[in-house]
Amino acid sequence: MRVGYVQFAPEFGEIRRNLDRVTDLLLRERADLWILPELFSTGYQFATVREAVELAEPVPKGPSTTRLLALAREGTCHIVAGLAEQAGGRAYNSAVLVGPTGLVALYRKVHLFYEEKRFFVPGDLPFKVADIGRARVGLLVCYDHFFPEAARALALQGAELIAHPANLVMPGLAQLTMRVRAMENRVFTVTANRIGVEARTAETLHFTGLSQIVAPNGDVLVQASSDQEEVRAVEIDPAQARDKHLTRLNDVFADRRPEFYRCLVQPKRAGG
Amino acid sequence: MRVGYVQFAPEFGEIRRNLDRVTDLLLRERADLWILPELFSTGYQFATVREAVELAEPVPKGPSTTRLLALAREGTCHIVAGLAEQAGGRAYNSAVLVGPTGLVALYRKVHLFYEEKRFFVPGDLPFKVADIGRARVGLLVCYDHFFPEAARALALQGAELIAHPANLVMPGLAQLTMRVRAMENRVFTVTANRIGVEARTAETLHFTGLSQIVAPNGDVLVQASSDQEEVRAVEIDPAQARDKHLTRLNDVFADRRPEFYRCLVQPKRAGG
Repeated sequence: MRVGYVQFAPEFGEIRRNLDRVTDLLLRERADLWILPELFSTGYQFATVREAVELAEPVPKGPSTTRLLALAREGTCHIVAGLAEQAGGRAYNSAVLVGPTGLVALYRKVHLFYEEKRFFVPGDLPFKVADIGRARVGLLVCYDHFFPEAARALALQGAELIAHPANLVMPGLAQLTMRVRAMENRVFTVTANRIGVEARTAETLHFTGLSQIVAPNGDVLVQASSDQEEVRAVEIDPAQARDKHLTRLNDVFADRRPEFYRCLVQPKRAGG
Repeated sequence: MRVGYVQFAPEFGEIRRNLDRVTDLLLRERADLWILPELFSTGYQFATVREAVELAEPVPKGPSTTRLLALAREGTCHIVAGLAEQAGGRAYNSAVLVGPTGLVALYRKVHLFYEEKRFFVPGDLPFKVADIGRARVGLLVCYDHFFPEAARALALQGAELIAHPANLVMPGLAQLTMRVRAMENRVFTVTANRIGVEARTAETLHFTGLSQIVAPNGDVLVQASSDQEEVRAVEIDPAQARDKHLTRLNDVFADRRPEFYRCLVQPKRAGG
């Protein structure tokens, strides 16, 4: 199975132009599963809630999902992409998984980063794994990488590959955590990050690239530059992610002791 | 507060000699909290269950804990050390935390690695945090590093520093995961690994050193070589671990969404 990422610099608010750019970029390589960055069609730095809701789109009727569905049909492939989803008059920082036959999965970012908290509603759907035939795919978005529980929840539900659209601004952080998420869960991870700069408010955001694909043993199979547009795909065998052995005597899932992990699911203390 | 590790090569079965060696090594530096390797007084590679149980000792009456208690009293410091504990006629791969006034905490390794499963009983005590005045300290042993739930359980209970005695044989693995454990929980981590070789059975074990101290932001404050005896201590401020902010708007503990993590504590499927 070939899996790849698209690393590019979306232009804020230029949905049509970004969709055309991705359409061009996907012609450069062939893959069975593509991962695009977070908020790939709108850009990242919203200034008002109204702007976020207006640029967000219903799924699957909106322009970005419609284009992705067409691309998946034409390329006979699956595509994971982060986009601003409009639902109930509010905006979610979501990811869709589409394939040749339609929308396969929708995920709404559970852990919102920084000023996203002003513009987006926190995800209200469970971590979810979808079977696309060649692999079982779990979805995370950007800052979710920081919470080991998120990748773990996907892996425990059978994810063999974690698709991770991102708009990372903290250099090197997710590249490290996602290597460890791959290792500790014995799954493949694909982080598709964006590049470029946005400075629509008082703050200038530098997006950090370094998109990467990691194997279940933690090996980085491929990593992009920090500042260049890049489309890359590699051959992987999802069956590797079904074997949870670290040693002959250590299956890292069988070795778990859930009875000692209960404090991880206790409700947070007020203010905590 | 000064915290340090002792990296050395215990000689298998030579408890008295190993205790004397540690006693000498601790004279080289001053620290408020020392971390010694896993199974520091017995060595690692047991050949039979009987050998493990016979070399193991009751806590706190056994020779290793007795010596550690004396060292803590004389040095007015706390010491974390991994040792073979004998209890109920069985052996645990345990860690003790001792201070000038006595035994402060006992932890029994929850996740057993490789052939340890032949010689030791899995830990039956919860992950535990002890307040030593200058800091709240949580205990892990070696392979526990691979399970994000373990460090998380300690951090959620207030650990500011995770003491991690180890006998690591897989190069570079725990150095990576423990950096991420520090970052994702915003705590200090101290991994005290051993060096040297044991070849008491058909298998030769090379212990990999690279003991390290990591700050809550993931910075490696100090790291030992892979093959030299080394005693190092650094100044840290445990208060840094009480601030869980990654950004002005992101407290990584407040950002957790435990309602989405429930599958992490579900009992394992039979055979799973």
